[in-house]
Amino acid sequence: MSDTLTVELGARSYPIVIGRGLLGGHFDLSAHIVGPDCLVVSNETVAPLYADALRQCLADREVESIELPDGEQHKILATAASVIDRLVASRGGRDTTVIALGGGVVGDIAGFAAASYMRGVSFVQVPTTLLAQVDSSVGGKTGVNHPGGKNLIGAFHQPRLVLIDTDTLTTLPDRELRAGLAEVIKYGVIVDAEFFAWLEANVEALLARDSDALRLAIRRSCELKAEVVADDERETGRRAILNFGHTFGHAIERCQGYGEWLHGEAVAAGMIMAARLSDAGNELVERIEALVEACGLPVRPPAIDADTMLNAMGLDKKVVDRKLRFILLDALGSARVTTDYDPARLDAILKAA
Amino acid sequence: MSDTLTVELGARSYPIVIGRGLLGGHFDLSAHIVGPDCLVVSNETVAPLYADALRQCLADREVESIELPDGEQHKILATAASVIDRLVASRGGRDTTVIALGGGVVGDIAGFAAASYMRGVSFVQVPTTLLAQVDSSVGGKTGVNHPGGKNLIGAFHQPRLVLIDTDTLTTLPDRELRAGLAEVIKYGVIVDAEFFAWLEANVEALLARDSDALRLAIRRSCELKAEVVADDERETGRRAILNFGHTFGHAIERCQGYGEWLHGEAVAAGMIMAARLSDAGNELVERIEALVEACGLPVRPPAIDADTMLNAMGLDKKVVDRKLRFILLDALGSARVTTDYDPARLDAILKAA
Repeated sequence: MSDTLTVELGARSYPIVIGRGLLGGHFDLSAHIVGPDCLVVSNETVAPLYADALRQCLADREVESIELPDGEQHKILATAASVIDRLVASRGGRDTTVIALGGGVVGDIAGFAAASYMRGVSFVQVPTTLLAQVDSSVGGKTGVNHPGGKNLIGAFHQPRLVLIDTDTLTTLPDRELRAGLAEVIKYGVIVDAEFFAWLEANVEALLARDSDALRLAIRRSCELKAEVVADDERETGRRAILNFGHTFGHAIERCQGYGEWLHGEAVAAGMIMAARLSDAGNELVERIEALVEACGLPVRPPAIDADTMLNAMGLDKKVVDRKLRFILLDALGSARVTTDYDPARLDAILKAA
Repeated sequence: MSDTLTVELGARSYPIVIGRGLLGGHFDLSAHIVGPDCLVVSNETVAPLYADALRQCLADREVESIELPDGEQHKILATAASVIDRLVASRGGRDTTVIALGGGVVGDIAGFAAASYMRGVSFVQVPTTLLAQVDSSVGGKTGVNHPGGKNLIGAFHQPRLVLIDTDTLTTLPDRELRAGLAEVIKYGVIVDAEFFAWLEANVEALLARDSDALRLAIRRSCELKAEVVADDERETGRRAILNFGHTFGHAIERCQGYGEWLHGEAVAAGMIMAARLSDAGNELVERIEALVEACGLPVRPPAIDADTMLNAMGLDKKVVDRKLRFILLDALGSARVTTDYDPARLDAILKAA
């Protein structure tokens, strides 16, 4: 049993299939693979758990594989280059498909390699973390980090298919499940107040890994993301609201060194900072803070000097004309992209950290 | 005085401006630069000649610059990464423009860096070699070489403008002028028999750098390339005819080591090999050979073992389903993409080399 959503992007439209027990040969992935061969990109943690199950969905295809080291600190150009080396070594052609099996780091690296190899080969996402299932596997953003900032090197490269087997969450460490919930909460905050209320009511079930609750949360998150992406594929406008909390979050990750806090943890603290900067009332901030806290996520950034944070934010991609651009809230479920913010308030938020 | 052509690609359409004396402040390049700043990417040979003249066209813009080492052997991922490092160091934003000033190698590297930095920033081509002016600066192909093959890492990233100052050809070494003529001849061979005849009649004027002859040759080459690219931007079909001679040519470059023969030289010899494989009559082969020879370009590949060449061709991007794909001729001005060729004839051509 599975649900199928579609990301509507004209010729680049693709399905998101969400369900239990899709791996292990139950989903015909071969039907979505155009050429004779594919390269499965995974990591040392996920491959032992799910690579065999994925292979069973790829009957009659030539399957090569590569295991990357695990962790955000490996999301660098050299790792993407190692995937390309593997494609060259296995004589991958223009009709080769790259399949990412893992979390957001694996998907981002594999996607950038797929985008760059021969100027773009087919790409399939099989996300196995909650964060990747609700966010990074959908929408075509791929890339790697640079010492100067997150995701500074990358490409827009849409997958042909996103295959979400929610059973993979059974092996996800608790800390990563919680980190994934940060992005789920984000959708409620920026575009769907009703979904936010549903999350408030179901946070216990989600943390207990109730499969129906997780499936509903994933499905709604993917629906909301697909809508925003369909409107603005290359983030020339509205898509930027998906970066809510990320200007602060990316700066936290950069200042700490990638891999210290999980991306979702940095975004959690960043969302609360962005909510404070929004000046949309204390009640709103407190409601977001309560849900973030209920998920066991950080509500405060780590101790980082205000100037260091400001400097780190200056290199964020969301800078236009050397003014900081933020995603701010008008109310729950309503966000805007703006460079019009109160510098004194920003200063106070950074100094309070 | 200048001509303007347009590459018709919907929202990604852009002008090609061709004329004499456009640099030195005579062309308002700033009008095509969206943001406050740009990075001029050039090399150690071209920058001393034209960087100042280019800067005069960029009044009121913040101009950063980087000089790459000169030569095809530097068209590698590490060099593209150095351009990205420079963009990060100068705090380039999403509205930064990368300007390539130089030949095909500079344009390909700078274009890939522009495509990958922040998932794509604006890009302008200012080609200063004949080859770049008639071929590589138009059409959006960017990328770098891999030890396993030419251009195996790259992106389609269209420039916002191609600015061709034909006066830059006055400083072009003779060998490079001739190499550029290989790609000019290619257009005649594959799509325009009349242009081929014009080239036969004007080869002396071109080699003598007659500015009117060069301008006409550049203009017609750009027109023909723009038409083919507009039909098939991402080379899913007909655009592949532009690779006429390149399956052989890329293999020659790969076997020799990049930088030994110039790209145009390898393509020249490759075109004659492809014409022979076409089985469209000796007269056609002889006519192409005569024009190639009149341009002082190689009509035979260097001595490379047939198996080594075949192996090198096996990694060419133009391989689909593990069959070699060639661009073959039906007649002068008429080419087709095909995997249907005579293996015995291919063998004989490779052994004759």
